[in-house]
Amino acid sequence: MSELRRDPITGRWIIVSVERGKRPTDFMSPSSQRKRGGFCPFCPGNEYTTPPEILAFRPHDTKPNSTGWTLRVMPNKFPALQIYGDLNKMGEGIFDRINGIGAHEVIVETPEHFLSLSTMPKKAVEDVLWAYYLRLTDLKKDKRFKYVMIFKNEGEVAGASLEHTHSQLIALPIIPKLVKEEMDASRKYYDFKERCIFCDLINQELEDGRRVIYQNTGYIAIAPFASRSPFETWILPKTHEPDFYPPKNDFSGLA
Amino acid sequence: MSELRRDPITGRWIIVSVERGKRPTDFMSPSSQRKRGGFCPFCPGNEYTTPPEILAFRPHDTKPNSTGWTLRVMPNKFPALQIYGDLNKMGEGIFDRINGIGAHEVIVETPEHFLSLSTMPKKAVEDVLWAYYLRLTDLKKDKRFKYVMIFKNEGEVAGASLEHTHSQLIALPIIPKLVKEEMDASRKYYDFKERCIFCDLINQELEDGRRVIYQNTGYIAIAPFASRSPFETWILPKTHEPDFYPPKNDFSGLA
Repeated sequence: MSELRRDPITGRWIIVSVERGKRPTDFMSPSSQRKRGGFCPFCPGNEYTTPPEILAFRPHDTKPNSTGWTLRVMPNKFPALQIYGDLNKMGEGIFDRINGIGAHEVIVETPEHFLSLSTMPKKAVEDVLWAYYLRLTDLKKDKRFKYVMIFKNEGEVAGASLEHTHSQLIALPIIPKLVKEEMDASRKYYDFKERCIFCDLINQELEDGRRVIYQNTGYIAIAPFASRSPFETWILPKTHEPDFYPPKNDFSGLA
Repeated sequence: MSELRRDPITGRWIIVSVERGKRPTDFMSPSSQRKRGGFCPFCPGNEYTTPPEILAFRPHDTKPNSTGWTLRVMPNKFPALQIYGDLNKMGEGIFDRINGIGAHEVIVETPEHFLSLSTMPKKAVEDVLWAYYLRLTDLKKDKRFKYVMIFKNEGEVAGASLEHTHSQLIALPIIPKLVKEEMDASRKYYDFKERCIFCDLINQELEDGRRVIYQNTGYIAIAPFASRSPFETWILPKTHEPDFYPPKNDFSGLA
C-alpha cells in the first residue's frame, strides 16, 4: 500500500506509491510517438477491463459496465491511494506518515476516443461538470477525507498516460499545503480589509481589462497577474461563492 | 526589462521575462535530438561570443576572455534579471511588483564540451565549488540582493538549452517563499525543541541508515524521507553550519 509522508521542514505532504510505476502507457516517453489505434481501456466495448463503474450517464435500459454510456466514472486501476481501510497516522521520530487511504477515480468524459473538452458539444461539457459535482458531493460525506482535488493531464507532456480524454479525482486525508496557504492568506486579507481577496481581485481585473480572457454573467476567466506558466488561466465565479456548485442547478454558464 | 510579480494570494514571486524567449538552443524540443557538433558559445575559442567574464580560473600569462581557462563565469547572455539599476518596488491595487534587478550568471565548469560533473576530475569539481563560493561572497556585498540561488539544469528534459556542462546563479531582490518557509519552520522547531531540525534529521537518518547514500567526515548525502521526485538527494554538513562555506578553506570533502 502507498503512504503519505510529510516533509518535516516544509510541511509538504507527498504520496509514495510503488503501484503507480506499473501503469500501461500510450506514450513512449521521452519520444512523442503516439501509439494511435492501440487498445484503449476507456473506449466502449472495453468496460470489462476497468474496475466497476461508480457513476455513469447512460440510458435506463442499459446495464452498468456495458456500452451505451456518454460519461463514465470508475476507480483508477492503478490508484495512488486505496479507498478501503481506516486512517492510521504514525510518527517516527521527526517524521509523520499516514497510510495511503483516499479515493483515486477516473472520469472518462466521452465515449469518443479522439474528442477533447475543446471539441465536445457544450452539453457534454456540462455533463462533465455534473459528474464532478456528484462525485464531490458523495466523497464529502466520507469523514476520512479533508480535500478532494480534480485535475486533468491533457497530452503526454502534461503527464497523461492514456490519450482518451479523461479527468482524475483524488480525495486526500490531508489538506495540501498550497490550499491551506490560500485559505490562510484569504482569511488574513479579510481580517485586515473586511473584504474577500478574490472579490477584490475580480473587481480590479474587470476595471483594468488587460488580463480578462472571457466573461459571461456568472463567471470570469483571467490570465493571472503572476502566472507561473504561459497560458495559465483562472476561472472564478463573479459572485462571492465558496465553490462552483451549480447556481440554480445550472452548469451552462461555467461550461 | 523583466519584472518580479507577487501572487496576491499565495505570496509567491515569479519573474516575467520576454527576453528569455529569445535564447538559442541545442535541443529541438520536444524531440530529444541533440545538435551535437554545432557551434558552442561555451567552448574555448568562442569567448568573444559571450558577455565579458566576471571570474575565470586561468594561468597568469593568459588574458581575460581568451583561451587557456579551466573555469569561466560570465553574465547570462539572455538574463532573467538585469544587474544595472536601482530597485523600484511598485504597488498597483492588490498587486506588487519589482523591476527586474538581479544577477544572472553562467558558470562554465570545464572547457571540455563533453565532460560533466560526474566525469570531471575531483580537483575540477572542487574548483567549481570555489567559483560558487567566490561569486556568493562577492554578490552578498550588494545590498539590493536578499538571496542567491545556484542551480544546474542537467540535460534537455531538465531544461538545459545548451549541452556544454554549466551551472547558473541568480541573485534576487526577494527571499523565495520556499526558502522563507524553511527558515520559519526551522526557527519554530528550535523555539519548541531548543534543537536544530537539520541536526535532528541527520542524527535520525544516521541511526536508521536506510536513507543514507554516502557520508564522509564532513558531509552526509541522504534520500529525503518525503522526496518530491525519484533520486532526490540532499547533501548536508554534519556539523551545525549555516552554509557550505569552506571549513578550513577546503572543499575536498564536499567535492
